[in-house]
Amino acid sequence: MMRFSTLLKNPADWMANDDESNSVVLTSRVRLARNIAGEPFPGWAKKEERVAVLERVRGEVEALPGMKGAFSHGLEDLSSVQKQVLVERHLISREQAARSEGSAAIVNRKQTFSLMLNEEDHLRMQSIRAGLSLTKAFEKLSNLETELSRKVPFAFDGRLGYLTACPTNVGTGMRASAMLHLPGLVLSDEVGPVLQGVARLRLAVRGFYGEGTESLGNLFQVSNQSTLGESEGEIISRLERVIRDVETHELNARQRLMENDPQMILDQVGRAYGVLKYSHIIASKEALNLLSLLRLGAELGFFEKGLRRVCDLLLMDIQPAHLQLHTGKKLDAESRDSIRSEIIRGRLQTLEPPAINPSTLKERKDSAENKDE
Amino acid sequence: MMRFSTLLKNPADWMANDDESNSVVLTSRVRLARNIAGEPFPGWAKKEERVAVLERVRGEVEALPGMKGAFSHGLEDLSSVQKQVLVERHLISREQAARSEGSAAIVNRKQTFSLMLNEEDHLRMQSIRAGLSLTKAFEKLSNLETELSRKVPFAFDGRLGYLTACPTNVGTGMRASAMLHLPGLVLSDEVGPVLQGVARLRLAVRGFYGEGTESLGNLFQVSNQSTLGESEGEIISRLERVIRDVETHELNARQRLMENDPQMILDQVGRAYGVLKYSHIIASKEALNLLSLLRLGAELGFFEKGLRRVCDLLLMDIQPAHLQLHTGKKLDAESRDSIRSEIIRGRLQTLEPPAINPSTLKERKDSAENKDE
Repeated sequence: MMRFSTLLKNPADWMANDDESNSVVLTSRVRLARNIAGEPFPGWAKKEERVAVLERVRGEVEALPGMKGAFSHGLEDLSSVQKQVLVERHLISREQAARSEGSAAIVNRKQTFSLMLNEEDHLRMQSIRAGLSLTKAFEKLSNLETELSRKVPFAFDGRLGYLTACPTNVGTGMRASAMLHLPGLVLSDEVGPVLQGVARLRLAVRGFYGEGTESLGNLFQVSNQSTLGESEGEIISRLERVIRDVETHELNARQRLMENDPQMILDQVGRAYGVLKYSHIIASKEALNLLSLLRLGAELGFFEKGLRRVCDLLLMDIQPAHLQLHTGKKLDAESRDSIRSEIIRGRLQTLEPPAINPSTLKERKDSAENKDE
Repeated sequence: MMRFSTLLKNPADWMANDDESNSVVLTSRVRLARNIAGEPFPGWAKKEERVAVLERVRGEVEALPGMKGAFSHGLEDLSSVQKQVLVERHLISREQAARSEGSAAIVNRKQTFSLMLNEEDHLRMQSIRAGLSLTKAFEKLSNLETELSRKVPFAFDGRLGYLTACPTNVGTGMRASAMLHLPGLVLSDEVGPVLQGVARLRLAVRGFYGEGTESLGNLFQVSNQSTLGESEGEIISRLERVIRDVETHELNARQRLMENDPQMILDQVGRAYGVLKYSHIIASKEALNLLSLLRLGAELGFFEKGLRRVCDLLLMDIQPAHLQLHTGKKLDAESRDSIRSEIIRGRLQTLEPPAINPSTLKERKDSAENKDE
């Protein structure tokens, strides 16, 4: 069974990779909510009932072919910092992190599947992948779900679909979402209208850490709101279409900014570089926002190729619980800001300054245009 | 006669030098207000009377031994940008810059003496020197005044002293001031109490550009308020004592910060370095504040020796009128912010990042303490 330290030391492929197509969409996630037929939902089950369901489902999940050597722990076996790391990696929810005995988290070796046992529902299973690949993520998750359904009878109603603790999940029990990096739209003041358009299509838009949190690092999460009246496939393809649209808007915004105001972009990227590289105390929020600009700079060719991956890993690693596990002790906010800065400086040590001055930018743009013709 | 371009291209020694003793006090200035006996003050003289006084005094000033080859121009011969440059160099007042025919500015070759003819008084003469040297500045100015008084009869009353247009100058007609760089007191939140103490001693404290302007770049001007009831020598030695006190407070504050919070200092200095070196658009106010931190970093040994001089010259050169003359055309605020940034980047091109990490800081501190014992 995978130990926590192994999970911590090995970032999943979806956390950071160099695939050029993942410039705007960082990750795609699909989760399914399922409950065991005839058993009370975790919220009103007695403790013994919860534990019985947990043991039954956990055994079956661990026995699935894709789950060999998985990370599988009761929440009571994890420290609060360890739980918080799982939240920061989007492997469990904040709600699940607050739970203890009678709930569990299972993550496969590649960290592409994560399952929460006895969160709000008996089972919440999630598939997470790099870039825009909701269809693939759903496919993989669906296979896992089918395998499991052969062992465990899921609560299902012919008219309503899958039954869940909260009515907003009844039906498909599915929530699909993608994490988008939209610095171009933010810098050109277009992010409001674009995301309002998304909201009008019955899709939800949220900040980095999900519901009710502000956007940090120009990261936005787009997800479906309804689980009734459409099939999973319809929901996913509708969502993918909208996300492709937003992606196009973002890429156009970046191009327009580079054409109309390269100086401003270079200023923003240069400042981010200067502060990340030479500050010694940095709060989480500022770091996320500056890393976002550095990531944009990497996309625009100001920096060496590998920088985007460095930024994406840092987005993960500078979060509070990751920092505490990195140093192996509980840290107050002041120490976190200092160690966060130290880690960032370390990772960016060999990074050369933004290489391009506005006139070269102009040339670049011209040659890019010629290439298009 | 010195041309404007010569004056512009040759920064005076007092604007920037490497003398270690000028760490806190950048410059000392003394000015004397004088009027010609029997002539109406400029404010209520007829134009012909003003012009007559101007011609008479101007000829005598130009003929003084220290004034050979001086810059001497009627205000009507200078463009508004040229006048503004003289204001930015503290060679003429804002009020004088608003004047035209019938007023003049005379500056000696070394730019250590500057004389305004027909400002508020017939004659305002100023001596300006690097560091804390009010006594020397007064001595030099006094010699000039004595020479001139042999040629021109000054309006003097046995009981009141020198007569001036504004009653606040009657008596000595002298205003002595020093420009202080107090980043240590500002960063340790002690500048308020210290400067309030100064104000209680009948001395005035003002921001970078004099009366009514906020402090920029942690620069403060301390000057005498009263011109009656004390001799020039008494005023000057009282002022020098107080300034030495403030200087000591500032140096102590810097030392305490380095002992108690070197991380914070390194963060502030590092950020200033990063932003000044890699931004592409920078407003005057931000630039002054960051240059102040870089200057502090130079004083604390984070950078190569020559940096303080570079900072002091930049403080002068990034001001709006200097920028416009540098580029040879009228610039809107946006272009100024871009060219300001370009100039700063150019001057700091070879500057290495702050060289010291907190542990070396600690060692430094220890060895400094051992040295003291």
